[in-house]
Amino acid sequence: MKKLLISFLLLLACVPYVGAQEGGKLLSMEEAVLGYGLYVQNRRCVWTEDSSAYTYVDNNAIVAVDVRTGKSRNVITLDEVKAATGAELRSLASYAFADGALLITAAGHDYAIGLDSKELIYDYVQPKGENVTSLGGGRYVFTRENNLYYADQTEERAITSYVNKNMVCGQSVSRNEFGISGGIFPSPDGSKVAFYRKDESRVTSFPLLDVTTRTGSLMEIKYPMNGMASEFVAVGVYDVNTKKTVWLDVDDFDAERYLTNVTWDLAGEKLYVQVLDRAQKHMNLNSYDAATGEFVKKILSEENEKFVEPQNPLYFVEGDADKFIYTTDNRDGFYNLYLCSVSEGTVERLTKTDADVAYLAQRGGRYVYYTSAEVSPVDNHLFRVDMKNGKVLRLTSEAGWHTCAVSPDGKYFIDSYSSLDVPRVVKLADTEGKKSSEIYRAENPSAAFNYGEITMGTIKSADGRFDNHYRLIKPINFDPSKKYPVIVYVYGGPHSQMVQNTFQASMGRWEMYMAQRGYVVFVMDNRGTDNQGAEFAKATHKYLGQCEMEDQVKGIEWLKSHPWVDGERIGVHGWSYGGFMTISLMTNYPDLFKVGVAGGPVIDWKWYEVMYGERYMETAVTNPDGFEKTSLIPMASKLEGKLLICQGTIDNTVVWQHCLNFVEACIKSGVQLDFFPYPTHEHNVYGVDRVHLMQKVTDYFEDNL
Amino acid sequence: MKKLLISFLLLLACVPYVGAQEGGKLLSMEEAVLGYGLYVQNRRCVWTEDSSAYTYVDNNAIVAVDVRTGKSRNVITLDEVKAATGAELRSLASYAFADGALLITAAGHDYAIGLDSKELIYDYVQPKGENVTSLGGGRYVFTRENNLYYADQTEERAITSYVNKNMVCGQSVSRNEFGISGGIFPSPDGSKVAFYRKDESRVTSFPLLDVTTRTGSLMEIKYPMNGMASEFVAVGVYDVNTKKTVWLDVDDFDAERYLTNVTWDLAGEKLYVQVLDRAQKHMNLNSYDAATGEFVKKILSEENEKFVEPQNPLYFVEGDADKFIYTTDNRDGFYNLYLCSVSEGTVERLTKTDADVAYLAQRGGRYVYYTSAEVSPVDNHLFRVDMKNGKVLRLTSEAGWHTCAVSPDGKYFIDSYSSLDVPRVVKLADTEGKKSSEIYRAENPSAAFNYGEITMGTIKSADGRFDNHYRLIKPINFDPSKKYPVIVYVYGGPHSQMVQNTFQASMGRWEMYMAQRGYVVFVMDNRGTDNQGAEFAKATHKYLGQCEMEDQVKGIEWLKSHPWVDGERIGVHGWSYGGFMTISLMTNYPDLFKVGVAGGPVIDWKWYEVMYGERYMETAVTNPDGFEKTSLIPMASKLEGKLLICQGTIDNTVVWQHCLNFVEACIKSGVQLDFFPYPTHEHNVYGVDRVHLMQKVTDYFEDNL
Repeated sequence: MKKLLISFLLLLACVPYVGAQEGGKLLSMEEAVLGYGLYVQNRRCVWTEDSSAYTYVDNNAIVAVDVRTGKSRNVITLDEVKAATGAELRSLASYAFADGALLITAAGHDYAIGLDSKELIYDYVQPKGENVTSLGGGRYVFTRENNLYYADQTEERAITSYVNKNMVCGQSVSRNEFGISGGIFPSPDGSKVAFYRKDESRVTSFPLLDVTTRTGSLMEIKYPMNGMASEFVAVGVYDVNTKKTVWLDVDDFDAERYLTNVTWDLAGEKLYVQVLDRAQKHMNLNSYDAATGEFVKKILSEENEKFVEPQNPLYFVEGDADKFIYTTDNRDGFYNLYLCSVSEGTVERLTKTDADVAYLAQRGGRYVYYTSAEVSPVDNHLFRVDMKNGKVLRLTSEAGWHTCAVSPDGKYFIDSYSSLDVPRVVKLADTEGKKSSEIYRAENPSAAFNYGEITMGTIKSADGRFDNHYRLIKPINFDPSKKYPVIVYVYGGPHSQMVQNTFQASMGRWEMYMAQRGYVVFVMDNRGTDNQGAEFAKATHKYLGQCEMEDQVKGIEWLKSHPWVDGERIGVHGWSYGGFMTISLMTNYPDLFKVGVAGGPVIDWKWYEVMYGERYMETAVTNPDGFEKTSLIPMASKLEGKLLICQGTIDNTVVWQHCLNFVEACIKSGVQLDFFPYPTHEHNVYGVDRVHLMQKVTDYFEDNL
Repeated sequence: MKKLLISFLLLLACVPYVGAQEGGKLLSMEEAVLGYGLYVQNRRCVWTEDSSAYTYVDNNAIVAVDVRTGKSRNVITLDEVKAATGAELRSLASYAFADGALLITAAGHDYAIGLDSKELIYDYVQPKGENVTSLGGGRYVFTRENNLYYADQTEERAITSYVNKNMVCGQSVSRNEFGISGGIFPSPDGSKVAFYRKDESRVTSFPLLDVTTRTGSLMEIKYPMNGMASEFVAVGVYDVNTKKTVWLDVDDFDAERYLTNVTWDLAGEKLYVQVLDRAQKHMNLNSYDAATGEFVKKILSEENEKFVEPQNPLYFVEGDADKFIYTTDNRDGFYNLYLCSVSEGTVERLTKTDADVAYLAQRGGRYVYYTSAEVSPVDNHLFRVDMKNGKVLRLTSEAGWHTCAVSPDGKYFIDSYSSLDVPRVVKLADTEGKKSSEIYRAENPSAAFNYGEITMGTIKSADGRFDNHYRLIKPINFDPSKKYPVIVYVYGGPHSQMVQNTFQASMGRWEMYMAQRGYVVFVMDNRGTDNQGAEFAKATHKYLGQCEMEDQVKGIEWLKSHPWVDGERIGVHGWSYGGFMTISLMTNYPDLFKVGVAGGPVIDWKWYEVMYGERYMETAVTNPDGFEKTSLIPMASKLEGKLLICQGTIDNTVVWQHCLNFVEACIKSGVQLDFFPYPTHEHNVYGVDRVHLMQKVTDYFEDNL
C-alpha cells in the first residue's frame, strides 16, 4: 500500500495546477477573503425515497432525474411550496423526502407537503428555544438557558428545572470533543429522549468583555483549564409518556469521566455510551437500560498509553439488532470499521486496510459503504465491503476527493469530487462499479485570474518514517532565476488536514493573493495531523509542537534547496494551533524565520481546556517535561524576528490568558512584538472584518519580510 | 500685569538651556525612562517646633542648622532611632517634630522619641487595615473592605457593618475629583471622625481581566459612566466616646450631589461641606452640627453656567473661629483667596491679583502666605498678605518655580527653587524680605551628557487672547541648514501644566532621548490647562479637544515657519487626555501629522466617568453637539497616518470600552492602525516596563516618521 501511495504522489507532484496566464486579473483583498464570485458551483443531490431519482434545486424548483431514463421533471416549485405553506420562503436550499411528502423547515415551522397533491399535510410549529430537536409528529425537545423542555403542538413542559445555572441540560458537553456536537438524543420512535447534563459548579469562570453595550459588560464563560477542576457529566433519559427522567447509572473510572457517542439501539430500549476516564487512556463501551438507567453490560473496552479517542457512534446493522459497526484506530493502527456482536462480545475487523476509514452508510443489511485514505492520504475514495464475505469493491476511480451519497436501495450513488485541477464533477454511478455518467461539471471560477502554479508533493517527516504532503504556490510570472520570499502558512494540529487533492489543493485564496504579490507560499501537513493513521497522529503526544516543528523545518530546508527561494526572507503565519506553531517556530528557530503572524495562539497548554489539552498533553503533574518544553513563556526571550499576534477580544477557545501572558513575558524580557485585537470576535475573525485582518497580516509581511 | 508677564517671557525665550556640548554622552533608554543617576538632588528641610532651626537628613542623621548662628548639630542619628525603637529602619526619609519629640512611622508603628533623652516615649501599633488614620494618642480609624473601623491600643470595633459591598465607608468618593483624596476626617482633638460613605448599588460594573492568576480572573470595578446612574454620597460623624454615628442632613440639589472639601471648625463642633449638584453648576458651602448632623447654615454659594469646581478646604484663621480663608476662581476670574466671616456671611477678597493663587500657610493670625502665577504662569513665587491691611509682600526673587516652607513662628522660610538652567537651589530667608542665604545648590546631573538646546517661549492661542507656553528641544549637534522631523508631546487636559520654568523646563528625559536621535521635540500647554485663570481653563467647556487642537495647530504652524523643521514629518504622542488629543489631531488634521502614538486614550466622553466628564462635557442629553463633535468614533474613517494605541489591560480610568470601540470603528472603516496592550498595568505604564513602552513608542516613530 505504501509503495502505491508514493508512486502515485510522485505522479501527482508532476502535474501542477496552472492558473490563467500573464495578463489575467489579480485578486482584490475582498475577493481573496470573501470570495465574491470565486466559489466553485456545486450540484447538491438528494435521493427520492424510492431511489428512482436524484433531485436538486434548479431555477427555484426541485428537479428530479430518473436514474434509469435520465429524464427530468419538476417535483415541486418554490411557488408551489409557498402556496402550500403560506411561508415567505426565498429559496429551496434545504429539503428532505419522507412518507411521500416534501419536508421543509422554515421560520420555526416544519412543513410537509404532499408530492402528488402539492398540498400541506402538516404544519408543525417549533417551540421557541435553543437546540430545538424534533421527536416526530410535531413533538420537540429544546433548551432555554440551562434547562431542557418538551413541547408538542398543544402543551409545553419542563423536563429539568435547575435553578442553579451551573447545571446545564440538553447542551453539548466536554467542549465538543469526542465527536460531541449536541446534548439531545431522541430514541428511534421519539418516545424517549436521552440528554446530557453537565455540572459546571467547580469549573472556573473566565471573564470576557463585551464592548458593544452602553457601559461595557461582562461575558463570563465557564472554562475548565488543564489540570484544574472539570465538569461532571451525566446522561438522563426522559420518557415523553410517563414524564419521568431516569439517569444512567455510570460508575466507571473517576467522577470527571467522559460520556461520549451516546447511541440508541434499534428498538429504543438500550443506550450505548463510550465512557472514558478523565485521563483519556481507557474507554468502556457500556449499554444501559433506557427505562431504568441501569447498567446492563460492558460490550468492549480500549486502552492506550497515549490516549483513546472514540469519535463515532455505533451503527447498528439493519435487521440485526445484535450487531453494530464500531470505529476505532486503537486496534490496528488506523481508523477501521469493526463488526461487533452485543450478545457474544465479539469484535471482528471489517475493513482490513492500513489506512484511515470513515463509515458512510449500509444498505440491505449486507453492504457497508465507507470512504478511506487507502489510495492516498490526500485522496478520498468510496468503497463498499460485503459484511458476509469481507469482499471489497472500490467504487470511485478518478484521483481526488470524493463525497458520495448512496441511494436508499443501495443500487446507485452520487459521486461528487474535485481534484487539483478539477473544480467539481458530479456523477451518477451504480454500486456494482459498472456504470457511471457525469451529471454536472463546474466551471473554474478563477479562470480569468492570473494564478501562480500550484503543485502538490511530499517531504519526508523528520524521523524519516512518513510522507508529509504539501502544496506549493509559485509567484505569478515566476522567473526561476529570481529569488522570492516565502510565506509558510501553518496549522499542524490534531484532526487537521490542510492539503488535500481537491480543487487547487484546498488553497486559501489569500495564499494566491500573496503569490500574486511575489511570494512563494508553502503549506504542509506534519506529523500529528489526520488521515495517516494512529502512529502519525499520536507522534506528538505529550510534546505538542515539537515534532511538528521538526517536520516543518524539513519543509523549509527543502524550500531553501531551490535557487528561487530567498532563504533570508521566510515568514510564517497561522491561527490557533497554527498560532502556537508560528510562535514556536519563530522562537525555536529564530535564524530561519524573519517575520511571523500568529492568530489566537496557544502559549502554554496549562491554559488550554481539559478535554483537548489533557488528551494530547496530559497535565503538568504527569508530564512536567512536556509542559516545560512546549511552553512559549520561557521562549519569549528568544524572539528575534518581527512577530504580530492577532486575537479576537472575546475569544472563548484560546482565552486571553495565553496572549497577554506572552506579551507580558516579552515585556519582562525587553523583547518587542506587535499585537492587534479584534473586538467582537471570538476565536477567529470571520465575515467582512476578515478583510481588515488579512490586510493587516499582508501589510505586516509586506513591511517587514 | 499682562505686560510685565510678556516682557519677562520674551526675555526667558532668549535664554535657552544649553546642555553639554558635542562629545557628551547619549542617554540609554533606561536612563531616559528610569532616570538612573539623573534625578536632581534636593535638600528637604523640616522646621523645628520652636523655629530655631531647620533640619534635614544627612549621613544617616537628622542635622539641625540654627537660623541665627548657622551652626549645625546632630539632632539624632539613625542608629539612635533604631536603638530607641528597636525597629529595622533603613533611613530617616520621613519624620516630624511634636511635643519635644521626634515622630517616626515605620512598619506599622508610630514612634515618638524624646529629643533630649533619645528614649522611646511611645510606640503605638497601627491596626492592620487600609487608609489607617491617626486620631492621636494611639487611636486610629481605618478601613477593611467596605467598612470603617476604630482601634486603639487595647480594642478594635466596627464603626460601620455593611454586608452590602456597594456601601463603601471611609474611602475616597467621586473618583478623587474636587480635591478629594480620602474618606476619613478626624476632628481637631480626635474625639470625632467624619467619613464618607458611597452607595454604588446603581453604578454599573466594568470587568477587567487579571492574567496573573492560574486560570485568569475577574477584577470588577464600579465605574459610573457619563450620563448614567452615579453613586450616592453621605458624610457620617462617629463619636469615639459615645460610639454613635450621625449622618449630615444634606438636602441640597439632587440625590447624586457631591459632598466636597469636608472641613472641621477649630473647636471640632461644626463641619463645613461644599455641596455641588450633579451638574456641577451650583455650590453651597454649608455648616452642620457635628454632634447631631443637623444642617446649621448656608455660608455662601457659587454658580456658573459652565461649572463650579471647589478644590480646597477652608482654612480657619488662627485665633478667630469665626473667620476662614476660602479659595475660588468663580468670583474674579482667577483662583484667589477670600476672607470670610461665618457669622456675618461676608466674603472679602484677600488676594487681589489677576493670577491664580494657592494658599500655603498663615502665621500669627495676621499673615497669609501664598504662591501665585502673577509674575508668570510658568513661575511660582511666594507672597504674603497682611489680613489686617491687605498689604502684599513678594518674598521670592529669582525667576523660577519656588516651593516654600514657612517656619512655625513665621519669621523665616525655606525657599527651594529651580529654573530652566538652575537644577535646584535651597535658601533660608526671612519673611520681611530682607535677608536670604543659600544653603544648598544641586549639581546638574546631566552635565556629562550631550543635551540639545532647550528653549521656552510663548505662542498666541488660536483666538489671539492668550499666550501658550512651550518648551522646544532642538536635536543635538543642531545644524539650522538641515530639516528635522518633529515630535509633539501633548497632554492638554484640565489641571495640567506641562511647561514650567523649572530645571530643563520640566522636560521628560525621553524628549531629550529623541532630540539625541535627531528629532525636534515640542511641548506646549494650550487653553484649558492650569495657571492662567478661569477663562483660559474653561475655554474648552462642552467641546473638549476642539480649541486645544486649534492651539496646538498654532504651535505646529509656528514650528513649520522655521527652515530647520521638516513639515512633512511631524509626529504626535500623548497619554490619557494626551492620547485623546493625539487621535483628535491625527484624524482632524491628517495632513499635518504623519505618525501618532496614543496611550490610554479617551475616545468618546460618554464612556468616561461622571465626575470629571460631566463637569467638562455635561451629558449627551444636554450637550449633544459637543459629544458629536468630540467623539473619535466617527473620525476613525479620517485616519490617514500611522497610529499606534498603547493601553494597560487593567486600565480602570479610561476603560477598554474606549480603545476597543475605536479599533472596531477602524476595522469597520477598513482603516489600519496599530495597538499594543500592557498586561498588569492600569492607566499608565510605570516601573521597569516603561522602558519597553518607550522603546515601542520610539521604534514606532523611528520606523514610520
